[in-house]
Amino acid sequence: IVSRPGGYNTFFLPEYKLPMRGPFGGRCAVVSQSGAYIVTLMSNLDRIFNPRYMITYGNQIDISVTDYLIALEDDNKIDLFCLYLEGFKPFDGMRFLNVTRRIIESGRKIILYKAGRTEAGAKAVASHTASMSGNYEVLKKLLKQRGVIIAESLDEMEDLLRVFSLLSHVKPGGKRIGIFSNAGFECSVAADNLGVLELAQFSKQTKSKLSKLLPSGIIDIHNPVDATPQTNAPNYGKSLEAILEDDGVDCLLAANVAPTPFMENLPASPEHDEDIEHEDSYPNVTIRVFKNAKKPMVVSLNSGPMYDPSVRMMESAGVPVFRKVDRAIRALETFIERSVE
Amino acid sequence: IVSRPGGYNTFFLPEYKLPMRGPFGGRCAVVSQSGAYIVTLMSNLDRIFNPRYMITYGNQIDISVTDYLIALEDDNKIDLFCLYLEGFKPFDGMRFLNVTRRIIESGRKIILYKAGRTEAGAKAVASHTASMSGNYEVLKKLLKQRGVIIAESLDEMEDLLRVFSLLSHVKPGGKRIGIFSNAGFECSVAADNLGVLELAQFSKQTKSKLSKLLPSGIIDIHNPVDATPQTNAPNYGKSLEAILEDDGVDCLLAANVAPTPFMENLPASPEHDEDIEHEDSYPNVTIRVFKNAKKPMVVSLNSGPMYDPSVRMMESAGVPVFRKVDRAIRALETFIERSVE
Repeated sequence: IVSRPGGYNTFFLPEYKLPMRGPFGGRCAVVSQSGAYIVTLMSNLDRIFNPRYMITYGNQIDISVTDYLIALEDDNKIDLFCLYLEGFKPFDGMRFLNVTRRIIESGRKIILYKAGRTEAGAKAVASHTASMSGNYEVLKKLLKQRGVIIAESLDEMEDLLRVFSLLSHVKPGGKRIGIFSNAGFECSVAADNLGVLELAQFSKQTKSKLSKLLPSGIIDIHNPVDATPQTNAPNYGKSLEAILEDDGVDCLLAANVAPTPFMENLPASPEHDEDIEHEDSYPNVTIRVFKNAKKPMVVSLNSGPMYDPSVRMMESAGVPVFRKVDRAIRALETFIERSVE
Repeated sequence: IVSRPGGYNTFFLPEYKLPMRGPFGGRCAVVSQSGAYIVTLMSNLDRIFNPRYMITYGNQIDISVTDYLIALEDDNKIDLFCLYLEGFKPFDGMRFLNVTRRIIESGRKIILYKAGRTEAGAKAVASHTASMSGNYEVLKKLLKQRGVIIAESLDEMEDLLRVFSLLSHVKPGGKRIGIFSNAGFECSVAADNLGVLELAQFSKQTKSKLSKLLPSGIIDIHNPVDATPQTNAPNYGKSLEAILEDDGVDCLLAANVAPTPFMENLPASPEHDEDIEHEDSYPNVTIRVFKNAKKPMVVSLNSGPMYDPSVRMMESAGVPVFRKVDRAIRALETFIERSVE
């Protein structure tokens, strides 16, 4: 167990392997049947995520997942529960369904990854935590009815954790999205993954602002906006602001393919003139737009390890950054779907 | 167009933004309707992947994707075609189906990502490359019948490219997989994602070897193997070798949660005694096992940015490394399914 309010840590890992230094996620509790699962979460979300509680409970001989949820359900400093489950103790299923219903009815969110979905997975689970897996499809149906958010993959679990813990300060007003990228293929791929989201119709004013900011030659400005690789970081940022100001827009996806020389997004080096520490670099512009935004916004930077420093800068400022545009929009979609009545 | 045999590059990007320095993928041709798509691939697979040809063709006013495939189909130095498509020119669909059939019948592989899947995506595609998207489900069915490998997400496209270009030197003998991780939850999650793969039954000899290498206290050794965080890198490597030597095993997933102090996987630092340059560090051990393996093997290292140097070391040696165990096994599964008759 790791408890921020209690100020203690019973994990057995040295700090140089797992520093636990994220400034965000303080209103989240992670309850996991696997200790290693929490270790991967904390490592993958290093410098981002550090929950209020981390609880691992293994074979639940004494205390089950349900007992922990009951113990935490009245803590009004917790808005988000993140659960990794392998299975249940006999007769614990109904208690679990009841506590999840109470938590969700009180306006909090539960995100769940369930292992032991197939026959082979159930056997592996039995050998790991001696749990009964049950039927995954039935459990999923029951939990979805109650409003639990189900992650189908390990990536999706972390994607959902990003949006639900980093966007908790903004309340979306609706499902109309603005999509902006400097690459046409990202506009196409994002539009393919709208789910319940709808493409916003920009006002005349927004279109007029964008036409001044985008490279000349783009005659028909429409959503998704293909800004082309010629757009630089300051104009990219002003375009995002123009879209966020549009009353017809409820949320924003700001996507980006990094290797264009017009976008300052590399750390200083003798090989070139770029420096992400500049006030108008791509990460700094994006961070400013995100911090001023009163609507949910996610970022996609689909490019390789050379651009990790830009990503880390934005992540440390609390921006939910993804490395693929389809993952970014799907996570945002789930956030909007679960936050808009 | 970038051509390795021709020695020319008509991309407009400076080398400091996109170096193109991967040693692998020399028997692959990428044909993409979007230039930015190829840019993201090359950036994401930096220091890994550098195909024989990269061709972008946009609105295909003069030359269509089919024309490029026809031009390349007789090049016996190409085993793998990677296609990003938005849509077709009128009357080009049947020609495309015919050339893909000929390529696949000759024993080569085609991996395809298709954008413009939904109404909104089709509109975005029309605005990007003026293509007719057609019905995605119908196209997918037709192409799958012909043996084309369809990537449903941008991540999956890169995952498939990793396995098909980095495992091309090994021919799998069957579908029986060995799964080894130092975390029990990874065994459960991997077993949940077997697809057409089957869990191998280890021989008595293999079990006996493993029982000597794993921490004492693990009595029932079975596949998937949960090696616990106490296993160190040399024993991890010897365990992988024992599994690969088993005649009942056709392929291997070697998974790993990195923050255990028993696994040397951090670059040298004054803060600790680890150094991945040591001969028996985790990445060096894994690289040796991979290079000697005569069976397909994939690696998962599910941990954060601190462990990127270990990942880069393995990738530069040609090891297909994933950061999530479910993505690793699904990519391997597709490779095995398409390589075993």
